[in-house]
Amino acid sequence: MSKKNAFYAQSGGVTAVINATACGLIETARKHKNKISKVYAGRNGIIGALKEDLIDTSKETAKVIAGLRYTPGGAFGSCRYKLKDLEENRAEYERLIEVFKAHNIGYFFYNGGGDSQDTAYKISLLSKEVNYPLICIGIPKTIDNDLAFTDNSPGFGSVAKYIALSTREAGLDVASMCASSTKVFIMEVMGRHTGWIAAASGLASEEKGAPPHIILFPEIPFNEFKFLDKVAKVVKKYGYCVIVLAEGVCDSKKEFLANTKDIDAFGHKQLGGAAPTIAELIKSKLGFKYHWALPDYLQRSARHIASKVDVEQSYALGKAAVEFAIKDKSGIMPIIVRKPGKHYRWTIGETPLADVANQEKKLPRNFITNDGFHITQRCRNYLLPLIQGEDYPNYYNGLPNYIKLKQHKVAKKLKK
Amino acid sequence: MSKKNAFYAQSGGVTAVINATACGLIETARKHKNKISKVYAGRNGIIGALKEDLIDTSKETAKVIAGLRYTPGGAFGSCRYKLKDLEENRAEYERLIEVFKAHNIGYFFYNGGGDSQDTAYKISLLSKEVNYPLICIGIPKTIDNDLAFTDNSPGFGSVAKYIALSTREAGLDVASMCASSTKVFIMEVMGRHTGWIAAASGLASEEKGAPPHIILFPEIPFNEFKFLDKVAKVVKKYGYCVIVLAEGVCDSKKEFLANTKDIDAFGHKQLGGAAPTIAELIKSKLGFKYHWALPDYLQRSARHIASKVDVEQSYALGKAAVEFAIKDKSGIMPIIVRKPGKHYRWTIGETPLADVANQEKKLPRNFITNDGFHITQRCRNYLLPLIQGEDYPNYYNGLPNYIKLKQHKVAKKLKK
Repeated sequence: MSKKNAFYAQSGGVTAVINATACGLIETARKHKNKISKVYAGRNGIIGALKEDLIDTSKETAKVIAGLRYTPGGAFGSCRYKLKDLEENRAEYERLIEVFKAHNIGYFFYNGGGDSQDTAYKISLLSKEVNYPLICIGIPKTIDNDLAFTDNSPGFGSVAKYIALSTREAGLDVASMCASSTKVFIMEVMGRHTGWIAAASGLASEEKGAPPHIILFPEIPFNEFKFLDKVAKVVKKYGYCVIVLAEGVCDSKKEFLANTKDIDAFGHKQLGGAAPTIAELIKSKLGFKYHWALPDYLQRSARHIASKVDVEQSYALGKAAVEFAIKDKSGIMPIIVRKPGKHYRWTIGETPLADVANQEKKLPRNFITNDGFHITQRCRNYLLPLIQGEDYPNYYNGLPNYIKLKQHKVAKKLKK
Repeated sequence: MSKKNAFYAQSGGVTAVINATACGLIETARKHKNKISKVYAGRNGIIGALKEDLIDTSKETAKVIAGLRYTPGGAFGSCRYKLKDLEENRAEYERLIEVFKAHNIGYFFYNGGGDSQDTAYKISLLSKEVNYPLICIGIPKTIDNDLAFTDNSPGFGSVAKYIALSTREAGLDVASMCASSTKVFIMEVMGRHTGWIAAASGLASEEKGAPPHIILFPEIPFNEFKFLDKVAKVVKKYGYCVIVLAEGVCDSKKEFLANTKDIDAFGHKQLGGAAPTIAELIKSKLGFKYHWALPDYLQRSARHIASKVDVEQSYALGKAAVEFAIKDKSGIMPIIVRKPGKHYRWTIGETPLADVANQEKKLPRNFITNDGFHITQRCRNYLLPLIQGEDYPNYYNGLPNYIKLKQHKVAKKLKK
């Protein structure tokens, strides 16, 4: 393909390392100016393309682009916006092609989860149909680790590290106080459909009796009787109990715990998450004093304690996306491949977008112990390499010195 | 005084750095074996003394004691237990003296907040009265920063750093998503009576428009109209709004927000903290999508990102306590003194326990902006030095390698 511009967009919930992927992509594109002229980023994801609201990354200095590697959040803005099916809303897809044409864009990089890979795939189909030459590459990203084909999803390793570390730290706090105060500590983590993040907390319990004592997964229906029995036993044995639960834990009728329990003092529905529901259940049935935490966005933006492996993989995927593209590969997603062997080694592979779209990778049953309350050694073996290494950002005045882009706007060429 | 043993106890809510104080105290005591024979720690604070449940720290290796500097929580166990007044429960105080006598304890070090300093003071009075020679030293500790006389309280600087950093990180996340998703993010932080921790979040907004946009302090009665007006204006101007609120924010009748608002969909009392109360208020009155976080114990156990200044001061206070003690100083608390001058410098001073007990240092009004929603430059000048520097723990297998004590029990010599 002759020299063209590239379009890059971030999609869905952002992570501590999605900008590391942007960094790898832009830095690599800058090394291939014979093929890729400029990288334009969509302001607020694909919405930026639809609105012809493009950011010219070539106006950013090399130093700022390098700083993306260390900066959490989505530097160009992301969005929660799913394009409808081609048949339903062909106009939207045609608008994208129109914008790409207007700005001489020959490369489309879409950095997101399952939905985004689906969108990238559909755009690749349409571009062929209308005979517009467009290299379409999806780049994986999701803290949920639920993307199929890739061994793990970039973004997940850093959340995993943060959650395991926070479990260990808060666990030490509760252990200190349990003789006369809080006996049960509950942390609600992200994961509406899969328990990967909750599972990561299990890495903190390297020795018997160390927190977390109980993990609740969306993959295992909540059984109140078994759960309360376990909590009582743990408190009796260790003096305290640390529980990590995924926000998406459901009861046997597949209803979210947060919605279904009627347990407050007035007999009213308790709103506001699974953790307070569980906490009140424990208080009312077992009488233990509790505390609970909800790290929410803190867990997915905690760049200060990102996993080094995660940062490296995120960067490598952005780099690989460009390298595939300049070899005229299209309709694919670069993936992380775990090499066989005792010691963890990884490399970048690829998978067709047609396969990856809209699949969801659940926690396998053999990653969860028989009683449903913890992770197995097999799960540890899978997770542990993903949280290895620290990759500290620079600090200025006591706080991480995250970069800010100029976000130079590309002049519009089309009507609204 | 001839050679005696020392008793050390941790009291109240633990911190990321209270063990650094223990480390300073034990390491320094080990250098003065001519005066201090052994340091016994109370298991679970003062309760350990009452129950004659003592831990012999001399059985721990120098390496493990050094590791205390890097380990959060209370390594010997802490407690929420306040001794009653001397007149009300003289027997309890006499029991303490009895235990100290039985174990040849001539030094009493009590590491805690205002209540604990009060206890240390009373014990010093009783020991004089019954003519039992006992050096009594209080050592400050509280994340709340509400102790008087000391320029700041050890433990606070690390929470301050964690909260400011988390505000910055989560703020970048929300900024990325606000065009199509979450517009308001609320973080509820500790501080039931004082707004020091909430104020620390303000350090993250180094430039105009940077989060947090609104801080709610317990010192300022919540005004719903002014607050909603401010939120609406911030969202209009910046596209999103980050709010940090102290758990102890009250309405004009001095009732906690978490208890007083009737705003859920059913018109029922909303339980579970001030953040969901505020969140629901914003949703119902302004219609913005929100997320909220409750870091809870994570904030006070986050040793992985402790402030270096805080760690150094915590260590220095433990060291100073011993140095005062071997000079036969009693009835005092070592404090942190800020030296005059443009650049931050500190030293250790002292204050009589009689003065410090049960005082509460509120955030001065001139540390809060006129509108009540942010911190002033004066406040920044005070806070900024306290979060300087990082003091990373060692990592093993991707997680901080915190130490664990053997906790060798001292043989009992008394009846129950």
